[in-house]
This record gives sequence, structure tokens and C-alpha cells, in this order.
Amino acid sequence: MESLINCTEEQQPSSVMTNSWYNQEACRSQKAKCAGGFVLVHAGAGYHSESKAKEYKHVCKRACQRAVDQLRAGALAVEAVTAALVELEDSPFTNAGMGSNLNLSGEIECDASIMDGKSLHFGAVGAISGIKNPVLVASCLLTEAQKGKLSAGRIPPCFLVGRGAHDWAVGHGIPPCPSEKMATKFSLSAYKRNKRKMELAEKMDTGQNQAKKRRQSSENENGSGCLDTVGAVVVDSEGNVAAAVSSGGLAMKHPGRVGQAAHYGCGCWAENACNMNSYSTAVSTSGCGEHLIRTMLARECSTAMQSEDAHQALLEAMQNKFISSPFLASEDRVLGGVIVLRCCRCVEAQPSPNIEAAMVEFLWSHTTESMCVGYMSAQDSKAKTHISRLPPGTVPGQSLAIEGGVCRLMGVVD
Amino acid sequence: MESLINCTEEQQPSSVMTNSWYNQEACRSQKAKCAGGFVLVHAGAGYHSESKAKEYKHVCKRACQRAVDQLRAGALAVEAVTAALVELEDSPFTNAGMGSNLNLSGEIECDASIMDGKSLHFGAVGAISGIKNPVLVASCLLTEAQKGKLSAGRIPPCFLVGRGAHDWAVGHGIPPCPSEKMATKFSLSAYKRNKRKMELAEKMDTGQNQAKKRRQSSENENGSGCLDTVGAVVVDSEGNVAAAVSSGGLAMKHPGRVGQAAHYGCGCWAENACNMNSYSTAVSTSGCGEHLIRTMLARECSTAMQSEDAHQALLEAMQNKFISSPFLASEDRVLGGVIVLRCCRCVEAQPSPNIEAAMVEFLWSHTTESMCVGYMSAQDSKAKTHISRLPPGTVPGQSLAIEGGVCRLMGVVD
Repeated sequence: MESLINCTEEQQPSSVMTNSWYNQEACRSQKAKCAGGFVLVHAGAGYHSESKAKEYKHVCKRACQRAVDQLRAGALAVEAVTAALVELEDSPFTNAGMGSNLNLSGEIECDASIMDGKSLHFGAVGAISGIKNPVLVASCLLTEAQKGKLSAGRIPPCFLVGRGAHDWAVGHGIPPCPSEKMATKFSLSAYKRNKRKMELAEKMDTGQNQAKKRRQSSENENGSGCLDTVGAVVVDSEGNVAAAVSSGGLAMKHPGRVGQAAHYGCGCWAENACNMNSYSTAVSTSGCGEHLIRTMLARECSTAMQSEDAHQALLEAMQNKFISSPFLASEDRVLGGVIVLRCCRCVEAQPSPNIEAAMVEFLWSHTTESMCVGYMSAQDSKAKTHISRLPPGTVPGQSLAIEGGVCRLMGVVD
Repeated sequence: MESLINCTEEQQPSSVMTNSWYNQEACRSQKAKCAGGFVLVHAGAGYHSESKAKEYKHVCKRACQRAVDQLRAGALAVEAVTAALVELEDSPFTNAGMGSNLNLSGEIECDASIMDGKSLHFGAVGAISGIKNPVLVASCLLTEAQKGKLSAGRIPPCFLVGRGAHDWAVGHGIPPCPSEKMATKFSLSAYKRNKRKMELAEKMDTGQNQAKKRRQSSENENGSGCLDTVGAVVVDSEGNVAAAVSSGGLAMKHPGRVGQAAHYGCGCWAENACNMNSYSTAVSTSGCGEHLIRTMLARECSTAMQSEDAHQALLEAMQNKFISSPFLASEDRVLGGVIVLRCCRCVEAQPSPNIEAAMVEFLWSHTTESMCVGYMSAQDSKAKTHISRLPPGTVPGQSLAIEGGVCRLMGVVD
């Protein structure tokens, strides 16, 4: 049995090119007991106006609380991360579940995925309509796959899309939700505005040099305004990690378009510590799906997190594997953000043999104008929230912000 | 201008644990001119009965010829690989395009993807119905994405699924094909047989311990019989590489299920040599989609191919990153296969300053009972084909076979 004793948290201000930001501690390369657990959520990398900042922070706070409620009740990381996502999806302010962006046909099609660092199983849905909480379908696919083969030796699916995904969900007890109930006043008026904008742009793109014009067309239109995908990363009291992500996708996307939120290695990643990995790591991404797919950003960040200095490793990953990635050489602005968590045992911080200390390092980084995050340990009375912004004078898609903190969790070991 | 002078080819017999199989040559780490080019195709890793062997070899031969026709006409790797795939999809014997496996509802839903090693762009379709050649849609997505942004600054999609993918394809000039024309006598009778088998298995799985029974249910049923996804890898005369894959998916899959053939990093991979990579590499996979997704086998094999000894590197990748992957720890049989191509300049083999020699190394490896491949250089008068089989006494899903060859291409440089 374990009980919570102490949780120290250190948070640093935004640092764009800082090399080392906290003292490294000696860590043993094995899964750490993380008394109570910890959650970090995001309500998207994009642009969060001051007027909506309060709402975004509120939903992050509630999502953290949901995950922590689960953790306190003894839930595993994968259950806690699902609970956080449901709250984020239910907010009409985020681009996930309720209030998602509408596609070119004025419909909502969502992507979501979840990964369990313990079993390394993965579940995902793409372009799913008429389901209020896409993450529940992803989570159910993960759970079902863990049960082993289907009748007649058939291998259970880990990724379902479209109508098939919807029918599978309903068949597994997830209630359908009329699509019109998932649209909001805001998403409907944004759709009408975007539609007019598109028609105008297409009228201007006439004749011979349409292809050339396409390349030159204003990038700001699709800038970092509507990318607010949501996600969360969790470590539970046993030290298991999990990650999840959910998105309504880009506004005015073609029907059937699937973004990074449903793509293995791109939307989320979670791996418990093992022989090869000193740290348990969990990552969730947000931003332009095509950029995040082609750079496999979630997995790249997870791999980077095995380096000694987490902050420096994430900075380099965002710079070299994202902004300057050869996979995005033709893109002038690379838009995205990540939240990252890693944890390990702290040998030096062990006050006595029957008390085990774990260190949870949590970070976020983005190339979009802003990113809204929230975090909480199971010991905290309430979540902390924050809107991170690019430093003044920097260019979205070419610069990045990186911030984070450390949380020490201590528990009594039997 | 270049012209073909010589192509030497050495092929080795199957070797399950051979360390070094050909003399390494000094290679320069830059893209090599590959006079005329080379293609390697597969008609799937699975089980190829002796009775159908002739048909499988025939289609591989025709696919190679199609690619080489394109290469000789000056086409880029990405065009040649598409041509090969169209031929493979059109065969009623392969599980791709025409003659694909039927899903649980008796419908055909296909996955396909393509990657261009030059631009590093990627195009994919998942669970698409009513299109005879899914690879053409993937290829068209790739081409369209390379043109840059859409009107109003919208980012073009790289991955479309379901009905939306179908409509996009038709809107881009790819003709629809009635689904009933894509089913064959063989696929329809296999569906009826599988349906009966499933119903019988489900009748036996009654009551309380259904979950337990699920785990124990016969694995042979879904063994390596129906996995014959197709794919190809190509290097063109300029030394650009491309890879593609296409699949009808697992027989009796749930509607909407998407396998590795549509998944970035899992179904195919292609990367031209660059500062960081000495070799241009191209990979295409086949087998159980869920296993290939969760191990990201295409990308793992591509990364491995940067090692000095290609044969040893592929052997280790298949062993450590696939059969013994921690991501598939709960699976007792891991079913899949890959074809791999890599090329580089041969400095030592350069007979004179105005003749440039390139070395193309090509390999295939599989854990399924058999894998059917074909290969051809632009200089050859016809393709060579081969059905590789696991050595007698080995267990599918736990053992592997690995084979391949080397092709030296020389061309006059202006």
C-alpha cells in the first residue's frame, strides 16, 4: 500500500533557447511508483484569444480533475486519460467531439486515438460521425484488442474509420449522438464564414496559373486559428503511462480526411520504462495533422525523451524533427504543439528505505501562437492552467516556445 | 545523357541465419545515378499453393514489366511504382483491388499508400470502396499535395478514407467501379466459407468463459492464408526511390477497419539518400495489418538499411523489431513480410571517369509460409520471379526466411 506524502513542483517561465533548466537527478532505469499519479492536458496548439482564455483554462482544469478523480479511485493511466479526454471533448470551445470544426460538406467527422504504455496497445478511430466522445471508441478498441483474438481466429482491429467505426461503437454500447447536436453556434457561423472565404478565393483563382496561385495563396487564412485539438498524458500510481488525443480536424477539410489524431505514432505515444528505455514517456500532439503525420511527431518526441536533459531533448526534437524536418522541406510554416511527460525513480531523493520517490517531468512546446495546458498531481487540491504564447516578435510556424515543470511524488512502500 | 551498359546480378539461395552474403563495396553517401532503374514487387506474404504459384509469378512478372516500361520511357520512380501496383491490383488472384477479400458485410474495402523518396510526400486511402485501383487515388493525393495549398490557404489532405475518399477520387477523374465487379468467384466462395466457419466458432463460444475461449481459439483459421497484399519498390535512372502498397485487408474484417497499407510508416517507406542517410531506401510490407502497424515495420526496415550489411540489418530488424518486438509481446505468431531495396554509388566499380556505377541491393524477408516476389532492371529482357518459402520444420510467425540479390547498374555520364 502506498500513501501520498509530498509533491514538490517547480515551474519555469518560457525559455526559447535555454539549455539546462533544472538540476538533473540520479534516476534508476525502471518503472517508478508514482504515488497517486499525475496528469497533463492540452486544449490545443493554435490561437487562444484573451476573450476565450478563461473558457479554455476552465476546461483544462475540469479535465485534470476528472483524471485525478479516477487516479485517486485506483484507476489505471489509460482509464484516467480517457476521463480527461471525455471532458475536453464535451467542451463546446475545443475542436474535438462537441463543437468540432465542420468539414467541406458542413458535417462533423472526428479522429481520436489512445495508447497504453503498459501493454503498448493502441486504438484509433478516423472520420467518425455521430458519436459524442470519439475517445471512448478508441479506448474500447484498445480494450477489446487486449482480450485477444475474435471468433475463428480473427485479429481484432486497432483502427476503424467512417461508418464502420460508428456501427462498431454502437454495437459495443457507445450511444450514437445526432450530428446536429454536436455542432455549436460558433462552429456553424465559422463554417459559413469559411465557406464565403473559400468561394471568394476560388473566384480569384482563375484560368491558367491556378496552380501557381494555389502556392501563393494567403497562409494566414488557415493559420493557427482553428487547430485546437485536445489531448492528455497521464502517469498512474503504479508508474504506468498513457496518452490520448482527439480532434475535429481542420476546418473545411475534405470529407474522409483523417489527421494525426488517428494516426499511430503521430497523435499520441506512450511507453512504460523497460530494459531499453530508462524513462516511461507519454506524448500528445496538436496542430496541423498533415505536418504531424509526416514527421511522426509523437513518437519522435517520445524517443527524444530518453535523453538525459528532457528540456534540451524536446527543444532539439521540435527544432530538428519538426520545424526543420526534411519531411516538411516545402512548408514555410510548420504548425504544431506537444505535451510530454516522463517519469523515473529518484534514487537520491529517497528519504528512507520504505519511502519511494519518483520524478515526473512535464513539458509543452509549440510553434503555433499559443497553447493552452493544465496539470495536476493526485495530491493537489486543484489543477494549474496556463496559456503559453510565442515570445513577441517571433513568427508562428518558424519559432517555438517551450515550458514545463517537475513534480516529485513520494509514497510509502510496504 | 546516359545509356545502359551493364547489369550484373547475383542471387543467393535462402539463408536463415547467414551473416554476410556478398562482398561489401565502397559506396559514396549520395544519391546514385541508376542507369535505367530497377523494380522489385511482391504479391504478398502469406501462403501460395503450388497450384496457384504460376498465376502469382505471372502477375509479378507483368507488374515488373509495367514498371520497367515506365522507367524506359523516362518516368520517375513514383510513376513506375504506381504502374506496377495497378497491374498487381488488377489481378483477380491478389488480395488488392480486383478480387480483394470481402469484409464481414460481404463488401470490398481497400487500403493503399505510396511514398516518394524524392519529395518525401505520402498519399494514402483507407477503407475505400468502388474504385478499381486504390493506388491511383493514393498517387493522386500525393501529386495534389505536392502542388501546395488549396484555396483559402487550406492544407491538402494526405490521407482520405471511406466515402469521402471515393468521392474525392471521382472528383479527380478516377472512374468509379461497381463493387460487384471487383468481387471474384474465388473471393465470394471464400466469404461464404469464412462466414460458415465464423458462425460455427461463435456457436461453440457460449456462455461465461467466452473471453477466455477467444484467446484460445484456433490461430490457424486466420493463419497466413489470406494476407496477400501487394507492393513494389522502385529506383529510377536518376536514383530516386519510391514505394507503394495495396491491400483488400483481412478476410471478414469489420467494415471500416484500416490496415497497415494505409498507415504512414507501416505499409511503405521511401527516402532518397541525403546528408544523414548514405543509402536511398524503399520498403513495402505485407501480412497482418495490426502487427505491421504496431511495429511500424516499413520505417524500421528503412532505418535498418542504413547499416553497412544490408542482409544482416534486415535479419536483425525482422527478428528484433518484428518477431520479438515488445509491441507484440502478447502475440504468439507474428505474420508479415517485407521487400526492401537500397542503392548507392559504387566508387570502386567505376571503370572510367565518364561511367558511373550504382549498386542496387534488393531483399525480401517473411515470417509467413511463403512470399511471392519478382524483380527486373531496365536492362533485362524479362523479370525474374520467385516464391520464397520458410525452411522445412520452421514455424510460421516465429521463424523467418531472408533472400535477395545485388544488381550493378552502369551508365555513361555526359
